[in-house]
Amino acid sequence: MKLYCIGIGPGGAEEMTQRAVRALAQCDCVAGYGLYLTLIDELLAGKERICTGMTREVERCTAARDAALAGKRVAVVSSGDAGVYGMAGLLLELCADYPELEVEVVPGVTAACAGGAALGSPLTCDFACVSLSDLLTPWAVIEKRLRAAAAGGFCIALYNPASKKRTDHLRRACDIVLETRASETVCGLVRSVGRAGEESTLTTLAALRDTPVDMLTTVFIGNEDTRVIGGRMVTPRGYRGV
Amino acid sequence: MKLYCIGIGPGGAEEMTQRAVRALAQCDCVAGYGLYLTLIDELLAGKERICTGMTREVERCTAARDAALAGKRVAVVSSGDAGVYGMAGLLLELCADYPELEVEVVPGVTAACAGGAALGSPLTCDFACVSLSDLLTPWAVIEKRLRAAAAGGFCIALYNPASKKRTDHLRRACDIVLETRASETVCGLVRSVGRAGEESTLTTLAALRDTPVDMLTTVFIGNEDTRVIGGRMVTPRGYRGV
Repeated sequence: MKLYCIGIGPGGAEEMTQRAVRALAQCDCVAGYGLYLTLIDELLAGKERICTGMTREVERCTAARDAALAGKRVAVVSSGDAGVYGMAGLLLELCADYPELEVEVVPGVTAACAGGAALGSPLTCDFACVSLSDLLTPWAVIEKRLRAAAAGGFCIALYNPASKKRTDHLRRACDIVLETRASETVCGLVRSVGRAGEESTLTTLAALRDTPVDMLTTVFIGNEDTRVIGGRMVTPRGYRGV
Repeated sequence: MKLYCIGIGPGGAEEMTQRAVRALAQCDCVAGYGLYLTLIDELLAGKERICTGMTREVERCTAARDAALAGKRVAVVSSGDAGVYGMAGLLLELCADYPELEVEVVPGVTAACAGGAALGSPLTCDFACVSLSDLLTPWAVIEKRLRAAAAGGFCIALYNPASKKRTDHLRRACDIVLETRASETVCGLVRSVGRAGEESTLTTLAALRDTPVDMLTTVFIGNEDTRVIGGRMVTPRGYRGV
């Protein structure tokens, strides 16, 4: 028996891999956060849906597992990549005691890559991804990682920079990066990447501190090599001796 | 005029997004490293090819730009994502003085996501990508980043862990991570991800130090939370209170 965990990329079907589209087509039951199912609605005709709210991940993945154990062909879908802040880890945990169930993780385009492409090429070289959500990670750990990433000279992609309840995390994150990185460091924001209303903005680290963001935004903080080239955010890799 | 820079994902056409397939279909000229063009050979029938060797990136991207300026519909293809250690940055640099040429970067599935999916879900939480190639980055910078990523508790994806000339970089990288991370830390290797002969291996940080790798391998170093669950490499995100 096989259970798919599919990364659908940042937007709709257009950003899915062909492998993801084909895996989904084989399934008769699809589990996912409601918004993500809406984004790929055109691919779900006739399929049963297991659709729970944002913070009901354990419930949703357990229901998907049990549907698979009952003989259904099931896919759990995650926005972006199935692994990066996605459902693959939880699903593998929940299925560990059911060796008859093979979990196939189908990777997807994560927001760091999709948002990076919208801005230019901010993550050409070494980079770190950090989520600013402290729902599952203590804020002290997030601070430690931000400080380490900044000190190490990494370009940084920030996931979940804010929610309705957490409105000051980006400001606090910027203050940590500003300890070791210049205020004019090139930064970028992408909202609703791959979806209707996609918006990209270039800014500086000092200005980013006071920029309003929401949970649909991915934030990019450049390193000392990052520049605005032709209106795009680019971290050169050094092919040209830069 | 538009010039596409397309990430084709780790393997062949199956791992490309539908957007990438459609963008490529619109082009009559495709530039890329020979191996990558071979991987998507089925999509290139009738198209002109600009195909140069591994270290001829500037030459290849310049030829692609000039073909676009001459009126051809051109795509530059990169393995994985077009941004992450890919051609997007260089292409944007080379096109900066030609505002009539719009560079559209089409993102793809990078090796961190594809290899992570093959292993399980090693990069569920915050992670860093580091290339061990010192062709374009001084080794001292690579060491600094490895030390920062390890101290920050990041899971780490290592790109380009070795080449024919660089055979000891992985051992040196492991020694740096071992300064702050336990020798039994769960690690994984994926060779030829998404391609014929794909191989995944789980190991420990101590054993990784002496594991032979090549330029087709992506290496994953877990953090203190990473475990082997049901035979897969998983970094739990904490949904279950772990």
